[in-house]
Amino acid sequence: MVGRTVAGMTNNPPVTVLGLGAMGRALARTLLAAGHPTTVWNRTPGKDDELVAAGAVRAATVADAVAAHRIVLACLLTNDTVDEVLTGVPLDGRILVNLTNGTPAQARALATAYGPDRYLDGGIMAVPPTIGGPHAFVLYSGSAPAYDEARPALETFGEARYLGADPGLAALHDIALLSGMYGMVGGVLHALALVRAAGVSATGFAPLLTRWLTAMAGGVGRYAAQLDAGEYGRDVVSNLGMQAAAWDNLTDTARAEGVDPRLLAPLGDLMRRRAADHPDEDLTGIVELLKETA
Amino acid sequence: MVGRTVAGMTNNPPVTVLGLGAMGRALARTLLAAGHPTTVWNRTPGKDDELVAAGAVRAATVADAVAAHRIVLACLLTNDTVDEVLTGVPLDGRILVNLTNGTPAQARALATAYGPDRYLDGGIMAVPPTIGGPHAFVLYSGSAPAYDEARPALETFGEARYLGADPGLAALHDIALLSGMYGMVGGVLHALALVRAAGVSATGFAPLLTRWLTAMAGGVGRYAAQLDAGEYGRDVVSNLGMQAAAWDNLTDTARAEGVDPRLLAPLGDLMRRRAADHPDEDLTGIVELLKETA
Ligand SMILES: NC(=O)c1ccc[n+]([C@@H]2O[C@H](COP(=O)([O-])OP(=O)(O)OC[C@H]3O[C@@H](n4cnc5c(N)ncnc54)[C@H](OP(=O)(O)O)[C@@H]3O)[C@@H](O)[C@H]2O)c1
Ligand SMILES: NC(=O)c1ccc[n+]([C@@H]2O[C@H](COP(=O)([O-])OP(=O)(O)OC[C@H]3O[C@@H](n4cnc5c(N)ncnc54)[C@H](OP(=O)(O)O)[C@@H]3O)[C@@H](O)[C@H]2O)c1
Repeated sequence: MVGRTVAGMTNNPPVTVLGLGAMGRALARTLLAAGHPTTVWNRTPGKDDELVAAGAVRAATVADAVAAHRIVLACLLTNDTVDEVLTGVPLDGRILVNLTNGTPAQARALATAYGPDRYLDGGIMAVPPTIGGPHAFVLYSGSAPAYDEARPALETFGEARYLGADPGLAALHDIALLSGMYGMVGGVLHALALVRAAGVSATGFAPLLTRWLTAMAGGVGRYAAQLDAGEYGRDVVSNLGMQAAAWDNLTDTARAEGVDPRLLAPLGDLMRRRAADHPDEDLTGIVELLKETA
Repeated sequence: MVGRTVAGMTNNPPVTVLGLGAMGRALARTLLAAGHPTTVWNRTPGKDDELVAAGAVRAATVADAVAAHRIVLACLLTNDTVDEVLTGVPLDGRILVNLTNGTPAQARALATAYGPDRYLDGGIMAVPPTIGGPHAFVLYSGSAPAYDEARPALETFGEARYLGADPGLAALHDIALLSGMYGMVGGVLHALALVRAAGVSATGFAPLLTRWLTAMAGGVGRYAAQLDAGEYGRDVVSNLGMQAAAWDNLTDTARAEGVDPRLLAPLGDLMRRRAADHPDEDLTGIVELLKETA
């Protein structure tokens, strides 16, 4: 047992966490609970009281925080913030694990700037309360040796998935997943606004909506197969002509209840345009129109 | 056993199905498999061969089909089609179960036109291949006696849920669920287009997306509670300011890969407007902007 707690001989490598917003705090809390010596820093003081009480060391400056441990984890607002915070701070002998949301291009630029051998990019697929829980997963890409070394710490957050040496891969997958989620959330907020406007409790309706979305998320594989094959007419279960014919029912119902259907509008427009020439296809054919106008 | 198959003494009431598109065929197939004597009609001939082979009776005219059985089920393209098909056909002594997609207002108008005592409206929450399977459910509203009488037939399609005597309730819930689904599907198609544009297989990416959407669908209850309470700042796990700050990462990544981000655009616009004044709220606050402009 002693061997597991002596620094340098431990399976619990010490970690520095830069940024103690909702997510940074959840990460630091999880590291501490798993027995990783943890040093924390945040621009605005006062966010680390709970963490210090749980055993974290408070660093007075970013430079102190970075000097404290080899594994430096950043979870800040944007990658501009990462640049701002780390400007002038020497990272020699450090591994930088950047869990800040960003684009693939930003991740590649950061890897070049900080050194491809020590830069690991990550995309957190969880909200703070679910960090460390069974559904959380985090995508990583960039330096493979850095990933291997930091892995015992990273695996405390949820399933860790390394996607490859191209530092942009984690951000690409992260952004694609978030795009899917925001589509769903836009639909959810429209749906909840609609039932409420009609006098139905959103809380009462929510389980039905969750069940329906969960069932329909099973259709992602069919769409993916159609797209990879470029065959939008393959295995169609709901033809586009029928879907376009029912579309006005969605917008008319929203307007009748005083809900602006603008969140649904672009899909309706693409659907109608594609259905005019391809009524027997599935909905996947609309991606042709996303290419055309990009 | 004989009692279960003699018409009039059976738990399997005979049913007429009007409309043999992808969905009508799935309904008729399921009824036949469950032992319900089934009469079918479709405008265009040739769609009922498989059903007739399975024991269905082909009606030459709508009037013949309606005359055949007390329970008449319609699954046609739109409610305009229902009106067109049933014009001049006497429905005396019949129960009309309308499973055609439509608005609450259309359902109420049909109930008035055909008789509130015999009209049952329905919203099918399934795609044809899943009819009769464990995830399918169908929402009903309108005449309660009609529902009770048709129930043994309706329960073959999946879980049957009766929402109340107001004929518009099934359509309201159906339309709200479809709106949520179309939001999700728009996000999914954007996400799949994005990974493919970046050279990643959609089929390989699909399981990750399904897993993520399924996990995030669990957040619907939190949004619903915030909306019912009118407290958009309650239990916030991802503050709107942070979400708005990351938004350009989504659109920049799409554009860098040649994918038009128009499916995401309206949510980004609402998010930015709301975040300007309410950065500490959750995303639910944007519903205020859907009211404002409706
Ligand atoms: N919350 C989620 O659901 C979630 C999920 C996945 C990924 N993420 C990502 O995780 C990152 C952090 O999110 P969060 O939820 O923790 O956001 P948050 O609660 O708003 O925290 C933002 C953090 O960034 C710091 N910061 C902002 N501007 C700064 C500046 N100019 N200089 C120094 N520090 C600055 C803040 O410090 P102050 O305290 O001094 O303001 C705070 O530590 C973001 O990239 C986000 O996209 C969040
Ligand atoms: N497929 C799904 O995933 C799904 C899911 C839930 C609900 N629904 C709803 O179920 C209904 C049927 O959908 P579906 O998938 O079966 O569509 P479909 O395969 O396109 O079939 C449409 C049906 O409507 C008939 N029809 C169209 N115009 C007509 C007219 N003027 N006169 C007479 N018949 C006409 C067609 O007859 P012809 O063969 O003569 O053209 C066919 O029977 C729709 O309201 C749809 O919204 C479908």
